[in-house]
Amino acid sequence: MMLKNHDCGTLGQQNVGETVVLNGWVQGWRDFGGILFIDLRDRTGIVQIVFNPAFSGQALDLGARARNEYVLAVKGVVVGRDPETYNPNIATGEIELQVHEVEIINSAKTPPFPIEDGVEVDESLRLKYRYLDLRRPEMQKTLRLRSKATKVFRDFLDENDFIDVETPILTKSSPEGARDYLVPSRVHPGEFFALPQSPQLFKQLLMVGGLERYYQVARCFRDEDLRADRQPEFTQVDIETSFLTQDQLLAMMESLMARLFRETIGVEIPTPFQRLTYNDAIHKYGSDKPDLRFGLEIEDVTDIVKNSDVKVFASVASSGGVVKALNAKGCASWSRKELDDLQPFATRYGGKGIAWITVKEGEWRGPIVKFFKPEEIAALTEKLGVEEGDLLCFSADKLKTAADVMGNLRLKVGRELGLIDNSAFKFLWVVDFPLLGYDEEAKRWVAEHHPFTRPRDEDLELFATDPGAIRAQAYDIVLNGYEVGGGSMRIYRREVQEQMFSALGFTQEEAKKQFGYFMDAFEYGTPPHGGIAFGLDRLIMLLTGRTNLRETIAFPKTASATDLLCDAPSAVFDRQLDDLHIRLSAKAIAAQTKPNASQEGAPQDSQNAEPAAQS
Amino acid sequence: MMLKNHDCGTLGQQNVGETVVLNGWVQGWRDFGGILFIDLRDRTGIVQIVFNPAFSGQALDLGARARNEYVLAVKGVVVGRDPETYNPNIATGEIELQVHEVEIINSAKTPPFPIEDGVEVDESLRLKYRYLDLRRPEMQKTLRLRSKATKVFRDFLDENDFIDVETPILTKSSPEGARDYLVPSRVHPGEFFALPQSPQLFKQLLMVGGLERYYQVARCFRDEDLRADRQPEFTQVDIETSFLTQDQLLAMMESLMARLFRETIGVEIPTPFQRLTYNDAIHKYGSDKPDLRFGLEIEDVTDIVKNSDVKVFASVASSGGVVKALNAKGCASWSRKELDDLQPFATRYGGKGIAWITVKEGEWRGPIVKFFKPEEIAALTEKLGVEEGDLLCFSADKLKTAADVMGNLRLKVGRELGLIDNSAFKFLWVVDFPLLGYDEEAKRWVAEHHPFTRPRDEDLELFATDPGAIRAQAYDIVLNGYEVGGGSMRIYRREVQEQMFSALGFTQEEAKKQFGYFMDAFEYGTPPHGGIAFGLDRLIMLLTGRTNLRETIAFPKTASATDLLCDAPSAVFDRQLDDLHIRLSAKAIAAQTKPNASQEGAPQDSQNAEPAAQS
Repeated sequence: MMLKNHDCGTLGQQNVGETVVLNGWVQGWRDFGGILFIDLRDRTGIVQIVFNPAFSGQALDLGARARNEYVLAVKGVVVGRDPETYNPNIATGEIELQVHEVEIINSAKTPPFPIEDGVEVDESLRLKYRYLDLRRPEMQKTLRLRSKATKVFRDFLDENDFIDVETPILTKSSPEGARDYLVPSRVHPGEFFALPQSPQLFKQLLMVGGLERYYQVARCFRDEDLRADRQPEFTQVDIETSFLTQDQLLAMMESLMARLFRETIGVEIPTPFQRLTYNDAIHKYGSDKPDLRFGLEIEDVTDIVKNSDVKVFASVASSGGVVKALNAKGCASWSRKELDDLQPFATRYGGKGIAWITVKEGEWRGPIVKFFKPEEIAALTEKLGVEEGDLLCFSADKLKTAADVMGNLRLKVGRELGLIDNSAFKFLWVVDFPLLGYDEEAKRWVAEHHPFTRPRDEDLELFATDPGAIRAQAYDIVLNGYEVGGGSMRIYRREVQEQMFSALGFTQEEAKKQFGYFMDAFEYGTPPHGGIAFGLDRLIMLLTGRTNLRETIAFPKTASATDLLCDAPSAVFDRQLDDLHIRLSAKAIAAQTKPNASQEGAPQDSQNAEPAAQS
Repeated sequence: MMLKNHDCGTLGQQNVGETVVLNGWVQGWRDFGGILFIDLRDRTGIVQIVFNPAFSGQALDLGARARNEYVLAVKGVVVGRDPETYNPNIATGEIELQVHEVEIINSAKTPPFPIEDGVEVDESLRLKYRYLDLRRPEMQKTLRLRSKATKVFRDFLDENDFIDVETPILTKSSPEGARDYLVPSRVHPGEFFALPQSPQLFKQLLMVGGLERYYQVARCFRDEDLRADRQPEFTQVDIETSFLTQDQLLAMMESLMARLFRETIGVEIPTPFQRLTYNDAIHKYGSDKPDLRFGLEIEDVTDIVKNSDVKVFASVASSGGVVKALNAKGCASWSRKELDDLQPFATRYGGKGIAWITVKEGEWRGPIVKFFKPEEIAALTEKLGVEEGDLLCFSADKLKTAADVMGNLRLKVGRELGLIDNSAFKFLWVVDFPLLGYDEEAKRWVAEHHPFTRPRDEDLELFATDPGAIRAQAYDIVLNGYEVGGGSMRIYRREVQEQMFSALGFTQEEAKKQFGYFMDAFEYGTPPHGGIAFGLDRLIMLLTGRTNLRETIAFPKTASATDLLCDAPSAVFDRQLDDLHIRLSAKAIAAQTKPNASQEGAPQDSQNAEPAAQS
């Protein structure tokens, strides 16, 4: 077999005259009057190879058998093309290969979809034939970029003296948090491992263990109902440090992000990043992960309208709610239907409605205009910078709901007005998240992040007076409206931990029962520590301009957590369940399809399989 | 809080006169006439800090409260010690820190074992308190070396244009091979994911997908009964390439190993590595993973003794067995007990016994000597290079058994004679493994490696005549008697695959049923490909001179697959099982201990846990 000494996609004028061997797949072929042109593709790109009776001899006959996706080996001479036949669409368009020898390494069935970018193919077909989908230049580019991005993370962290530590995948189920994936134990009947939702406890234990700087590109698992931007298994770049302040850590992470974007897509990200408190983010942008590629800030007009004759404004204001307003500049021209659609839009985000005013021909129009007093109109005009052609939108509700409605309206208006620069990357830190939130149902305080999150030192006294006002040393890193990472400084002093548990309604003893070995560990000299984790899949999605996490993963699962390629999950044999000391529930038995019985009896034994330590 | 601007372990003469801040743990303390000396430890090492009323003032009082493993912050001036007080045991032994300020960052309970190397501590105690065990310099060094080693792998593969691709952890159960860990699906009642025993199928699919060069530091899982050198989850550096010959791949991997040893422990490994065929390895060293740090080859004396009056030799030889001999140079002095112990030694490896002859005072002694004819003694003397003081050992059996017995005897003798240079690293490739083995029970051929392993081209015709003689393009990389990696070239041509399946007793149709989507993939233009996987845990074990895989893993499991630190696996709540549509078997219910009931009712809800996307 002829094996390649050059790549297809990197040949150029510099190779003219050279005899080279190429391997690749047939991207396409055409016969012009007895001369055969084949586009040969490998992972570096495409080159045109030419079979001509004048120089190819027998090779032409063999080459003529090739069809799309056949694997070829060719030997030939690189020649320059006539300038009028240059192909500007491929990097190798100024040369071609005159084939002297060819070998058909493998044939191929006709693929179920064309192996090229930009064709519309049903995603489930792409996932079933992922090995063909991966041949498309766009997928290759994405996987390469993902590999490169991971490398940049590692290089940076390595240079900053972080230690890459692998933490267990078979670990302990926690009653907390999202649903665990469980793994029954064969050795310990009735007991289960859980797949980690994150290496959180282990990375904190590594700090107790004195590693000082840890990282891991860690696989994590959540058995949650999936959305477009969730996968049952996902990857996070997990980081923890000791003896650093929050500011030191965030600055280091900014350098890391800047380097990531520079070295993967050549984009310079200015540092330091903008910082926004959680409160400001919610009030100004209606979101704790605001997209700051455009302005269009939300205003609080509660004070202006609290005594208004618009009854809903007044009653919301008097019951502790807020009235939020957004001036959709130039949107007075929206149609009646567009304005009517604001009602279901608000409902989608839990709101009761959106009150609107159009400013046309110098006049305020809309159902609520008549209730405003002139001084209210004057104040609103000033606060909202009202001009001819504007559309004023109002949401009156509890802060969270009003913010959510207005935040989403802001995004909608921003998109429709074309305010968003799609080539921009706008990072920011959201900081000072609340430490505690009040659970109205349970009538108690709950940790907003987790119960080991460190409060700001200057807020410690608020445990006694106003727990809801305590700010956490917790932070999210937001890019273009997506949370791409987050973390916190952790509590390391026992007296603070006790205050925290007390606020959550735990005695120290209950806390020990709940958090067991983890609490024990903290009694043996815990250093001040904190960390962060980046969502790698989402970062890659943003780096590559995709909108779907599945595009960033070689073998992703569907929204119903199915792997369409290998058909997982699947039924297993009863003997496997027996080994694991479990049985199916009645519902599962009813739903069950037995695994292919022919497998059980097939003439194949356990000696045959590749040992896992080999490959 | 004072946070460090220097590390403890790197201070030296170059810092004398500097005011520095250090953070670390108290390694030890002593009070000499009102002057307090503390050894302060961080991950870089230890430095002596001194509290003296003359320069420490109030700090002395606070410092005096410190006990072992307390976390301190100290500010002070680096001073040179008197040369007669130099401490040669620590890198910072020529200086010390005169403390001006101290802060007790955290206190610590007395640890259950001393935080230092070289103390005997029960391993289960070390595993339960792994976070303390990790503070020991030796564990820190191992984890650092592991991190570095992984980095070297990645750097090398990256420079050679490999793409790092993550393959799924939640994948499909295979009826083949070792037992799978299963993960019940909540969304698909009665169906299960399996954790991968290796990314074998995925990496081959990536080659079908045109990636050409793939690698991954991959977590793998086997639910097997564990030995000292097995873990239920382990890490392999997984590699696959297209369009390379076996020789090209092996040469590249030799460079990789040489670089790994150079950059982690500063040892030069000569390349190319020795290559040994499987047959030679078995015949000469009685093992397919021979330790070549010493010679002591096993000889085949079947021809010499096949007509001997030693009945067992003659009968074994006439029934297709072999007689293997090892000359244990200078071991004629073994005691009668040592010689008697050869019998149970042979039994341990499946043999019936070991016949022995001592050569003392020019005389051959032993139970079988009298049966030898003079010409047999002459021939043995020449073949085995017999000299005064030798011990000759014989095993007569089927090749596999005799090789196993003699191979293990060779290791025992080599160790006892001190023939093994423990500082040496002796790599070799074992190649030309047999493709097929005959299963006597099932009366059929089975794949020795896996059914996709490529036969050597020149052996293809043996499918028709002598399948057992077909050599596979499979190879193991062996270091000091340990298999540290292995792999093969894969079949990529349909006609070869059909021959293989036919030899295994499969029709093409049965094979399709058995291997499903994987077989489908191979019909769309499969490139010639092959790969290898290195056992990372074992490599690290050998790099660090350990003898136990658990020493190389931050949070390992015991031989009964238990995590003693977090007490996994553990019982889970019935509602978790309900969600997953499974129930416990009667045996499991009998064995079950309910999870701590207080957890269920604890005032903590799902909002509290750290979201997995955060940290």
